[in-house]
Amino acid sequence: MARYQIYVTYKQGIFDPAGATAERALQQMEFDEVDSVRIGKYITLEVAGEPDAAQRARVETMCEKLLANPVIEDYRIESES
Amino acid sequence: MARYQIYVTYKQGIFDPAGATAERALQQMEFDEVDSVRIGKYITLEVAGEPDAAQRARVETMCEKLLANPVIEDYRIESES
Repeated sequence: MARYQIYVTYKQGIFDPAGATAERALQQMEFDEVDSVRIGKYITLEVAGEPDAAQRARVETMCEKLLANPVIEDYRIESES
Repeated sequence: MARYQIYVTYKQGIFDPAGATAERALQQMEFDEVDSVRIGKYITLEVAGEPDAAQRARVETMCEKLLANPVIEDYRIESES
């Protein structure tokens, strides 16, 4: 069993609607020091088998095919072990 | 200017619909080694002012009031500086 953390964020220049909404809401509450909010995904993935290069390559394919949208999002993979 | 990373995850035992959907979809594709997928939020927050304890306390309040739902979600704050 191996565990991976995947961070999915919008590419620079891509509009982040959830982040923009949270940013405005915080500024209109008591938090006018807020300059920017960007909201991405934080994915925890548990995979059977040993954490090796082949497994990591498959996790990258999972990101490309389903977990991220490579047209508008970047992703970063960290393995826990 | 200070920058914080905030990780918002469902509490243990809380159903994660997006994670469950991604998990099943990956298993039905070619990725039957997938055991578990949990999808949380990865928030990048930029705040004016110096990164001190008072600022961090305000970021915690932002999490409690808006960025996370403390009833069903946990959050972890990291400061970059």
